[in-house]
Amino acid sequence: MGEKVNFAVIGAGRIGRLHAEHLAHRIAGAQLVAIADLRLKAAEECAASLGVSQAFQDHRRILDDPDVQAVVICSSTDTHASLIAEAAAAGKHIFCEKPIALELKQIDDALAEVAAAGVKLQVGFNRRFDPNFRRIWELVQEGKIGEPHLLRIASRDPAPPPIEYIKVSGGIFLDMMIHDFDMARYLVDDEVQELYAVGGVRIDPNIGKAGDIDTAIVTLKFAGGCFGTIDNSRQAAYGYDQRVEVFGSKGMASTENNTSNRSRLSTSEAVQEDLPLYFFMERYIDSYLNEMNAFVECTIKDTDPPVTGSDARIPVVMGKAARLSYEQNRPVALSEIS
Amino acid sequence: MGEKVNFAVIGAGRIGRLHAEHLAHRIAGAQLVAIADLRLKAAEECAASLGVSQAFQDHRRILDDPDVQAVVICSSTDTHASLIAEAAAAGKHIFCEKPIALELKQIDDALAEVAAAGVKLQVGFNRRFDPNFRRIWELVQEGKIGEPHLLRIASRDPAPPPIEYIKVSGGIFLDMMIHDFDMARYLVDDEVQELYAVGGVRIDPNIGKAGDIDTAIVTLKFAGGCFGTIDNSRQAAYGYDQRVEVFGSKGMASTENNTSNRSRLSTSEAVQEDLPLYFFMERYIDSYLNEMNAFVECTIKDTDPPVTGSDARIPVVMGKAARLSYEQNRPVALSEIS
Amino acid sequence: MGEKVNFAVIGAGRIGRLHAEHLAHRIAGAQLVAIADLRLKAAEECAASLGVSQAFQDHRRILDDPDVQAVVICSSTDTHASLIAEAAAAGKHIFCEKPIALELKQIDDALAEVAAAGVKLQVGFNRRFDPNFRRIWELVQEGKIGEPHLLRIASRDPAPPPIEYIKVSGGIFLDMMIHDFDMARYLVDDEVQELYAVGGVRIDPNIGKAGDIDTAIVTLKFAGGCFGTIDNSRQAAYGYDQRVEVFGSKGMASTENNTSNRSRLSTSEAVQEDLPLYFFMERYIDSYLNEMNAFVECTIKDTDPPVTGSDARIPVVMGKAARLSYEQNRPVALSEIS
Amino acid sequence: MGEKVNFAVIGAGRIGRLHAEHLAHRIAGAQLVAIADLRLKAAEECAASLGVSQAFQDHRRILDDPDVQAVVICSSTDTHASLIAEAAAAGKHIFCEKPIALELKQIDDALAEVAAAGVKLQVGFNRRFDPNFRRIWELVQEGKIGEPHLLRIASRDPAPPPIEYIKVSGGIFLDMMIHDFDMARYLVDDEVQELYAVGGVRIDPNIGKAGDIDTAIVTLKFAGGCFGTIDNSRQAAYGYDQRVEVFGSKGMASTENNTSNRSRLSTSEAVQEDLPLYFFMERYIDSYLNEMNAFVECTIKDTDPPVTGSDARIPVVMGKAARLSYEQNRPVALSEIS
Repeated sequence: MGEKVNFAVIGAGRIGRLHAEHLAHRIAGAQLVAIADLRLKAAEECAASLGVSQAFQDHRRILDDPDVQAVVICSSTDTHASLIAEAAAAGKHIFCEKPIALELKQIDDALAEVAAAGVKLQVGFNRRFDPNFRRIWELVQEGKIGEPHLLRIASRDPAPPPIEYIKVSGGIFLDMMIHDFDMARYLVDDEVQELYAVGGVRIDPNIGKAGDIDTAIVTLKFAGGCFGTIDNSRQAAYGYDQRVEVFGSKGMASTENNTSNRSRLSTSEAVQEDLPLYFFMERYIDSYLNEMNAFVECTIKDTDPPVTGSDARIPVVMGKAARLSYEQNRPVALSEIS
Repeated sequence: MGEKVNFAVIGAGRIGRLHAEHLAHRIAGAQLVAIADLRLKAAEECAASLGVSQAFQDHRRILDDPDVQAVVICSSTDTHASLIAEAAAAGKHIFCEKPIALELKQIDDALAEVAAAGVKLQVGFNRRFDPNFRRIWELVQEGKIGEPHLLRIASRDPAPPPIEYIKVSGGIFLDMMIHDFDMARYLVDDEVQELYAVGGVRIDPNIGKAGDIDTAIVTLKFAGGCFGTIDNSRQAAYGYDQRVEVFGSKGMASTENNTSNRSRLSTSEAVQEDLPLYFFMERYIDSYLNEMNAFVECTIKDTDPPVTGSDARIPVVMGKAARLSYEQNRPVALSEIS
Repeated sequence: MGEKVNFAVIGAGRIGRLHAEHLAHRIAGAQLVAIADLRLKAAEECAASLGVSQAFQDHRRILDDPDVQAVVICSSTDTHASLIAEAAAAGKHIFCEKPIALELKQIDDALAEVAAAGVKLQVGFNRRFDPNFRRIWELVQEGKIGEPHLLRIASRDPAPPPIEYIKVSGGIFLDMMIHDFDMARYLVDDEVQELYAVGGVRIDPNIGKAGDIDTAIVTLKFAGGCFGTIDNSRQAAYGYDQRVEVFGSKGMASTENNTSNRSRLSTSEAVQEDLPLYFFMERYIDSYLNEMNAFVECTIKDTDPPVTGSDARIPVVMGKAARLSYEQNRPVALSEIS
Repeated sequence: MGEKVNFAVIGAGRIGRLHAEHLAHRIAGAQLVAIADLRLKAAEECAASLGVSQAFQDHRRILDDPDVQAVVICSSTDTHASLIAEAAAAGKHIFCEKPIALELKQIDDALAEVAAAGVKLQVGFNRRFDPNFRRIWELVQEGKIGEPHLLRIASRDPAPPPIEYIKVSGGIFLDMMIHDFDMARYLVDDEVQELYAVGGVRIDPNIGKAGDIDTAIVTLKFAGGCFGTIDNSRQAAYGYDQRVEVFGSKGMASTENNTSNRSRLSTSEAVQEDLPLYFFMERYIDSYLNEMNAFVECTIKDTDPPVTGSDARIPVVMGKAARLSYEQNRPVALSEIS
């Protein structure tokens, strides 16, 4: 089966193991040949459970292996940019979890290496591959709603992450809303020119003490004349709330949340349904498989990845603009962020 | 049946005739005794169809009649403030369609007359009495969603009004979004301190030529720390779109649109439901009856009206702040509007 | 206003007062001129509240009045057949609440009088005029679901009636399911040839002691090859459950229950909606107005009523067949019931 | 990894390959060691794609292998009973696709072998493991709806199978409704005593020529006093329709169909959603994994399988009773079927 692309995974944490399982068993065009993790034991356990023969502590073992054609980078965020650069220099195609980096300089350097090496790079904005949001994108692309006029995104987590994570996360706009910035560009198929952010600490004062906020709304102005809002909360009592709505000249496309089942219970009290799927691993499980299938396909067919380096960079610019807007309580043009 | 309150209606246009029919037949505590309209024929026709014996051209005939205890003002907006002042001076309780006026000075003068006369004044923010929004308000008041953190209002008309109407309407923020400003205050039960408006002309260039916009989003900061957005469009292809959502520390309360029936058709193409009720006369028919019942009840029981003079004034302040924000592209505090 | 049809109502109970109010105020083509009730005080109170000048104890006063063109019979069921005969003989058009009688002989005699007199007769199968079911009928008539293959009706009351009522009701098949028999014929637009009934006492043993059952399912075979089921329960904990579904060669048309509002509450427990409207006066309020409008229109335009004498008779035949089927535990052809 | 149970799959058709993939990769407690198929090539291809080293034409190679602890029988229906007997005699635990056989004698003989050997047998009534129906079962078991009074099952395929399949299928009651008979027993948690079937040919006359019908309704009487209906159609234009509803003394539990996404499109025509998942491989994909997990767990923990031999036999009795009822147009007691 020589047509299969040989993959290695760098980083055997939760999301790394998920990608590894998909590559090992569920994607016809890929073969998983090695796993690396600074914690060697984690790499070994993951490899063993998937029937993969090679497990390394040092990712260089992978990059030096001429049989490896593509790598999936799932290590900690602060290593993404340098690993991309190394992998590109080694001539490997690259799938990297988002974000590439929190600083634009690092992103730009990594993207330059990728361009110089001529390898493919796809960034893990998995929500584009979620069946709900994909369907909205299709409806917009097919002209079913006409020209987009208004966009609404509600994106709320079931519970905040640990404060230690908050401190290094880059803040709500770069850590959480970055997915929604990508979704906004994806669904409207246009660039945001200016945005305005409001927000505050409503859930946990410790988030405030860590220099962040936990509740935010950002208003977007798109180049083509669409307007949009994104709201984020770090804690929705009813679970993971992930809904979008695009309103245009001919109609509206919108989504409901996914649930674990479609039951309804009618009693003397109320008619009730079960809660949304609790968090991203349940809610977006299909999207992780779909995005990797798309990446494998573009490496096989030598086509452009569906999420590009530019798609990786712009949401970081938007996150920085949102933070500035929030701090100065004024609209900020993306062109202000260099 | 001496316990009935004697009502007269001033203005026999569409909304005036609706209130008149409710008062004539559908509200136990009210008796409709007279109708006035500058177009005498309109007053006469309305009176005849409802079995009311008195129809006048001059509203003074009503105000001079000691048997009339309450008036419903449904004439054109530019006459509201002076009619309120006259009716108050004549000692009549007053139900007035919104807005009292587009200028704060006129509103303040009218409210001063009402206060001096000690009569009751209720303004026609009918949506507070809509079963959907009333239920959301109840859920919030009962603490079911905890502390409000985020508010979302989508409010979109099925089709824009005539350009001639647009020209004298006061603009989208004072003509259309004013209802949503009231709804925001009502549902969150708090005052807005600052807002930020974006918008543009997406539907009809003639609306732009008339000095107005047809698509807008306003972001709200409430005194208590809730944040919200309102979006307006003058034209939703699928009909009248009127939805609210309040998200808080314990959950979320939200509404779907009302439809004329609850049918579903499943074919090889799709599963489809009928469109939302087309416009406000269908969508809010219950609310008009409910608000008038509430007003009649407070005149009988001598209690405070559920929508006060202050409730009438503040949305006008918000509309002016939104216009200023839009023009200057900056957040505007309500305190800037005197 | 000579174009109005002069109506009188016989029977000032709950449903009689409802029809009277509609005729007095809400139907343009009708004028309510008199109300009769064996309890004169009831007739007088109803007349007074609606501004009607004539109230009688004896319905003959109405039938003898040449100015009365149409009567609405809302008295107790055992008087329907004879009142229809009398009214027909007096040349009045007739709207009669269902059923005409529990015995076919009485129905046939009444219908013969109507035919002989050439007056119009409409029977109060109001559910045909409910917006939900009307919409399903339209979808079927328009061919949207193709040829009907399967019909499902769920029809469940919120609470059983008093045992005293049960005793004289004719039993669940003639008292409750009769509406669903009519709905089945109406939606499928075909006649039932044979049916099979099962059921039992699940809710209240006293219903059993009264000779009736409180839970039942009837299977229907239509002449054209459609099959259907109707289920009835005298007590649904969540309120009045009234749903239909027609499945055919091209698709399916179905309805959800109506609710008082379209709110949703999402908490850590569940996503919940409010209960269905509690009972028939709330659920079917529009249908009562619509059916009377239809009757008034056919008297004005001299067209056939939308619910005929045959429509009144056949559901009684079906009810008797269902009872026989239940008692003998075998399929019963409608032709067995003479 | 000695704790894993060694599995072999007999029959490498569509469902066999699905079970094989689950056992190979997605079930922690199982190890797939061999695959057999009369078409050796099919066995080899399946084995190769899953990294399984042994592929056989003769299933005896599997039964003779002492390392194999459990087998999954996915061969053609007419081989099920004898394979069960052989596998039991060989001391293997058995998972067998439904039905065991179309004749009760064969089923009883196979079950006797299983009992004699003391091995575990689970039959593939996978729908019990579907998250929707599982949730309804839970709600019933938890007493949320009280005592069951009424059951409704709609079970409609997107398209009929080939006529050649129809001819050997055993007919709609044994081939298609057998799943619903199991579901009825499962959800109500009680046995059916008597049933009554109606039906006909509405979709394809060739189905009638093959001696079968394509549209059917069966009415059920449960021992405990619940009544139910099941309807089947071989062709629903809108896709695979799989809904259940259990109504009881305290409320109702019901399910909607699953869809590929939760999008809604609102245009000037209608508000529409996408169709239900097309057929059983999409709709019930989770249930196949869940049922095999349950079987593996009971082999590891030495507990009783959740679907027993009796559960396999009774739906066949019900299918035969339904056929007899349909042919003789009378209610048939299950006790009539020996």
